[in-house]
Amino acid sequence: MKKKVRDMGIKIGQLPVGEKNCITDIAGVRVGHVTLQEELSQEGAYACTGVTAILPHGGNLFQQKVTAASYVLNGFGKTTGLVQVNELGVIEAPIMLTNTFGVPAVTQGTLQYMLDTNKEIGDTTGTINIVVGECNDSHLNSIRECPVTPDHAIQAIQNATEDTAEEGAVGAGTGMICFGYKGGIGSSSRVVTIENDSTSFTVGCMVLSNFGYSSEFFAERYRVSTIQQPSTLSPTDGSIIIVLATDAPLSSRQLTRVIKRCGIGLGRTGSHFSHGSGDIVIGFTTAHHIAHKTNDYLETRVQIREDHSIMNLLFAAAAEATEEAILNSLSQAETTAGRDGHVVNAYLFES
Amino acid sequence: MKKKVRDMGIKIGQLPVGEKNCITDIAGVRVGHVTLQEELSQEGAYACTGVTAILPHGGNLFQQKVTAASYVLNGFGKTTGLVQVNELGVIEAPIMLTNTFGVPAVTQGTLQYMLDTNKEIGDTTGTINIVVGECNDSHLNSIRECPVTPDHAIQAIQNATEDTAEEGAVGAGTGMICFGYKGGIGSSSRVVTIENDSTSFTVGCMVLSNFGYSSEFFAERYRVSTIQQPSTLSPTDGSIIIVLATDAPLSSRQLTRVIKRCGIGLGRTGSHFSHGSGDIVIGFTTAHHIAHKTNDYLETRVQIREDHSIMNLLFAAAAEATEEAILNSLSQAETTAGRDGHVVNAYLFES
Amino acid sequence: MKKKVRDMGIKIGQLPVGEKNCITDIAGVRVGHVTLQEELSQEGAYACTGVTAILPHGGNLFQQKVTAASYVLNGFGKTTGLVQVNELGVIEAPIMLTNTFGVPAVTQGTLQYMLDTNKEIGDTTGTINIVVGECNDSHLNSIRECPVTPDHAIQAIQNATEDTAEEGAVGAGTGMICFGYKGGIGSSSRVVTIENDSTSFTVGCMVLSNFGYSSEFFAERYRVSTIQQPSTLSPTDGSIIIVLATDAPLSSRQLTRVIKRCGIGLGRTGSHFSHGSGDIVIGFTTAHHIAHKTNDYLETRVQIREDHSIMNLLFAAAAEATEEAILNSLSQAETTAGRDGHVVNAYLFES
Amino acid sequence: MKKKVRDMGIKIGQLPVGEKNCITDIAGVRVGHVTLQEELSQEGAYACTGVTAILPHGGNLFQQKVTAASYVLNGFGKTTGLVQVNELGVIEAPIMLTNTFGVPAVTQGTLQYMLDTNKEIGDTTGTINIVVGECNDSHLNSIRECPVTPDHAIQAIQNATEDTAEEGAVGAGTGMICFGYKGGIGSSSRVVTIENDSTSFTVGCMVLSNFGYSSEFFAERYRVSTIQQPSTLSPTDGSIIIVLATDAPLSSRQLTRVIKRCGIGLGRTGSHFSHGSGDIVIGFTTAHHIAHKTNDYLETRVQIREDHSIMNLLFAAAAEATEEAILNSLSQAETTAGRDGHVVNAYLFES
Repeated sequence: MKKKVRDMGIKIGQLPVGEKNCITDIAGVRVGHVTLQEELSQEGAYACTGVTAILPHGGNLFQQKVTAASYVLNGFGKTTGLVQVNELGVIEAPIMLTNTFGVPAVTQGTLQYMLDTNKEIGDTTGTINIVVGECNDSHLNSIRECPVTPDHAIQAIQNATEDTAEEGAVGAGTGMICFGYKGGIGSSSRVVTIENDSTSFTVGCMVLSNFGYSSEFFAERYRVSTIQQPSTLSPTDGSIIIVLATDAPLSSRQLTRVIKRCGIGLGRTGSHFSHGSGDIVIGFTTAHHIAHKTNDYLETRVQIREDHSIMNLLFAAAAEATEEAILNSLSQAETTAGRDGHVVNAYLFES
Repeated sequence: MKKKVRDMGIKIGQLPVGEKNCITDIAGVRVGHVTLQEELSQEGAYACTGVTAILPHGGNLFQQKVTAASYVLNGFGKTTGLVQVNELGVIEAPIMLTNTFGVPAVTQGTLQYMLDTNKEIGDTTGTINIVVGECNDSHLNSIRECPVTPDHAIQAIQNATEDTAEEGAVGAGTGMICFGYKGGIGSSSRVVTIENDSTSFTVGCMVLSNFGYSSEFFAERYRVSTIQQPSTLSPTDGSIIIVLATDAPLSSRQLTRVIKRCGIGLGRTGSHFSHGSGDIVIGFTTAHHIAHKTNDYLETRVQIREDHSIMNLLFAAAAEATEEAILNSLSQAETTAGRDGHVVNAYLFES
Repeated sequence: MKKKVRDMGIKIGQLPVGEKNCITDIAGVRVGHVTLQEELSQEGAYACTGVTAILPHGGNLFQQKVTAASYVLNGFGKTTGLVQVNELGVIEAPIMLTNTFGVPAVTQGTLQYMLDTNKEIGDTTGTINIVVGECNDSHLNSIRECPVTPDHAIQAIQNATEDTAEEGAVGAGTGMICFGYKGGIGSSSRVVTIENDSTSFTVGCMVLSNFGYSSEFFAERYRVSTIQQPSTLSPTDGSIIIVLATDAPLSSRQLTRVIKRCGIGLGRTGSHFSHGSGDIVIGFTTAHHIAHKTNDYLETRVQIREDHSIMNLLFAAAAEATEEAILNSLSQAETTAGRDGHVVNAYLFES
Repeated sequence: MKKKVRDMGIKIGQLPVGEKNCITDIAGVRVGHVTLQEELSQEGAYACTGVTAILPHGGNLFQQKVTAASYVLNGFGKTTGLVQVNELGVIEAPIMLTNTFGVPAVTQGTLQYMLDTNKEIGDTTGTINIVVGECNDSHLNSIRECPVTPDHAIQAIQNATEDTAEEGAVGAGTGMICFGYKGGIGSSSRVVTIENDSTSFTVGCMVLSNFGYSSEFFAERYRVSTIQQPSTLSPTDGSIIIVLATDAPLSSRQLTRVIKRCGIGLGRTGSHFSHGSGDIVIGFTTAHHIAHKTNDYLETRVQIREDHSIMNLLFAAAAEATEEAILNSLSQAETTAGRDGHVVNAYLFES
């Protein structure tokens, strides 16, 4: 049974973690996975991939949008949907993760899900924007065969729960490689508290880790097993998708500032945001539910006074939760075999 | 037979046009369409949509990439592929246009085309980035039924030729509405010449026009028919995708400067880049073919000295060609009937 | 006596103008000028320049900041202060305009003014951000001699009133050239009204116009005198600073969207945002006064629901007011003589 | 005598350092300081500040510009000149560092220096863009008194040499505080080598460090003295200006990618890019000298093929050199007394 690094005594940063140490510590946030680990009908082809869905809340996301932002650390990536997130500062569909060539199928499936649950989209109202992040899992997965289908996306959405999310080689993380070891899905959270006040906010991070050379990993910063596993040289620079959720009331501009700090956490693991790595952060806050249509021309938003010290705590929380989520993706991913006999070893934080 | 506005005596700007007054005036650029105009098997559903492919050159685009840039005038849009264009400044696949919900199918088809013609992608080399622009044609097209398939994308690519492109209600433009009249595909070009030198460069624009209220149209700037057609109120703000091509040697940064000026041409038609309009420009130059892999660590690029007066001519060319391409999309689009008995009239520049 | 173009019957766009057709139609906004027209002690040197101050309100701007945004149409310019405006979305000092080499002196003077009226800045609280926009008036002004001093900035601030602002060859506009004719300060405003509601908002624009070749000017769009004045070829591409003010409640992100549309108005006059032109927009809304310090960690902001049709009206207002402000800068600027016998003629809209 | 951290055995990263472990390892780069440590004539006022000039080469920078880029990690800062750097990708004057309220005086002085050495600026040719970075040294320096004058800027430029730069509490760093200890100027460099080739490039970093709470500092990553000095609580979040120089041939777009990685180095010291911190990176390469004017309309640029592994080494070099430069700013800054009896202790890496 794989553990989170904190359960092995590896503590990242200074802030307290949430109850589940997971992105689902933000009330309402749901995560669902579909994992594909199977031979394909094409000779020699093997599916070692999947889909992960992150739902900002359990209601109708199109009808009740959430404030959102994106930030590109390094743009060698095929994430879709960011143009509209950047313009309007909202997300209105589940955030989906998958492999690079799974993006069209997952977009199609998520679109179908949203059309089925919102009959007016594309008929009496406008269209819908879908955000899908991706990493390249072609070392283990026969990515050219595009094993992910639209139905897998719908299933991942339907699988979503508020439970502590499964991590490691699961969902979109099934075939991912991090620092030459088995990576994939990882999560962590932080709680920040207003000084002299009982109010606290939670910041949760979920990563899809698929980046880094083993020579880059700052192993010395973390507890390392005496029995070291051999690492794999991935044929590409990989990528990481970082999803940051919070319940702190932030405008899209403020949220952009917070999610920029996720790169600090990534850098502290040893990454240099490699040339070929699509290192992208997607953030949202559940603090506002923004109705698709109202009769009003005004709306009222509560937001953090960003000169308050809580803003710096949110910054630190973003960095800490990202770093720990990456480690959790490593600590919980089992050694995995994929296409063409390729095997990627788990990283052993303890022996 | 519909005409380009210039053939009706409407002259936009001061610069000379290219031989075909079309984006295909840039040597090597190819355009292909697939047009869908048919009842669908679902009761009452009707396909009035399509796909348009713009190929920067006729060779293998993955192996010989072109310098590119993108610019978002208004980001209420679902265009995919821009993250990597912005990071690396290259395009490595055909630029595809379709309806909003056709983006996943067209991405999938274009991906399939590129995988079929490049066996190493996703196997021994990395992945590929595909750019697909879109507008919402839901007034005429049963967009919820997603009539566009991956095969349509492949056909559009295969249909591409260097001929003068078909314009109006064709390809991705089949179901589009511009200023309340039938819009769609339009194109125009300009030639700019170095003073005291025989060297000239061509700038070509192709638009997918689907924006604007009829009250906004600056009809007084253009020759207007005495027999005015009734206009349609589209249920949404629409969008426009503008593709600008040139053979002038420009860096991605320089190209960004040039394509920013397409918004000037758009504004001159009367548009205010409406809130719900995805107004996006994608630019490329054919001046450099950038090999996917070489053994070199250096490359040499020729580029315009941007303090030279030719740069201002390129700016003017981008604005002029965009404005005229929009008008051509109006002048050549025939009155079109679509779903639920909806009809959108052609705009009559002359009677 | 020079007139605004509207008083000559030239009407730009469809929206009604405010009472003064000036940026001071936004309640609280103040404008002040200092004009320098004099021989300098250095032999042959002549000051034909000045300073203009735009105050978002009449109170203490550092203590009561306003929501703000900036947008760079073309960045060949030396405007200072935008880094912090972009990060925090506020302005906390008068917005100052002057000539290119007057920026340090005007920054220094404005800083001094703010330090004098806020004893805690740089002592018990942090620093202050000052925004200064500029254009190059070197054809008429001995810009190398830096005739603008910090005191001129302080005077311009002290001169500021809520009256209809003086326009033309005044303040920072004293030495500016637009389309080869005498340009400078121009202003215009628009009123937008919520449908079926008595609520209206005002959008006001003030420009410092110093751009464009006479061959670019879209004279045919406007009433043109039969007696045409000869135009001047400026040695540089010039620049334009556009300041857009509103009382509509907008977030900084929304305001960015609105001020982007100022480029539409600029383009409609004939400009192509020349290479060497610093075409920069600075926007603010007076709808929120944001306290420098409070004990709260939360704040409440009212903002426009941007899917409401009022947003498109604000977009149109920004474009229309900018275009008309540019024309007003031309119509009200008198023929001006400057250094080395250079004379720049007024443009005659009517004879 | 203070030492660089490497001389105390603290090694950051894996890449070899240049000969001087300084930004002046890039051939041609010069650094000059002016340090102010003196009582001012105003009662109780004390100057504890200065100016630092970084010259990309020893020739006429206006006539021979260098390729440049900027990147804003956190924009709570008053750095000037970035608008034009971002548009054109060049720097054409010495890069200047000073205190926040010294920016106008230093801009004025640098302008004067450039006007004196280029008689055509503002006369027969256009204007000049000057980049000045700043941090707030108000804990030690009577910043409200603006002790820095234009002459100090000119002196700093004239003091510039290719020698190993002085570091610590010198020049612009005189009054700066880093992690609650005395910070200021620090520098470091890295050498990256093309595999199987004798070619190497150098990356040099110079920081003006003035950021961070002592609780944030990752002291455990570095050798720490047993005799700990008390730290100071600065009244503000501070700032850091990072200047990255290289001789690797990079386009402005590529350079932006490289300097983005400076934030990795900053984050590894413990910083979270605090809300009130102006964390700004300015980069340039000496690989191209770009003539102000030529008769050509084309230019040829050599640049790195960014898919080559050297790009990732440049990324790592930027991160490593930044981290080590920050540590060097700490290790070499002496305990400093400033205004109102304020003293800031040196950080002791070794006892």
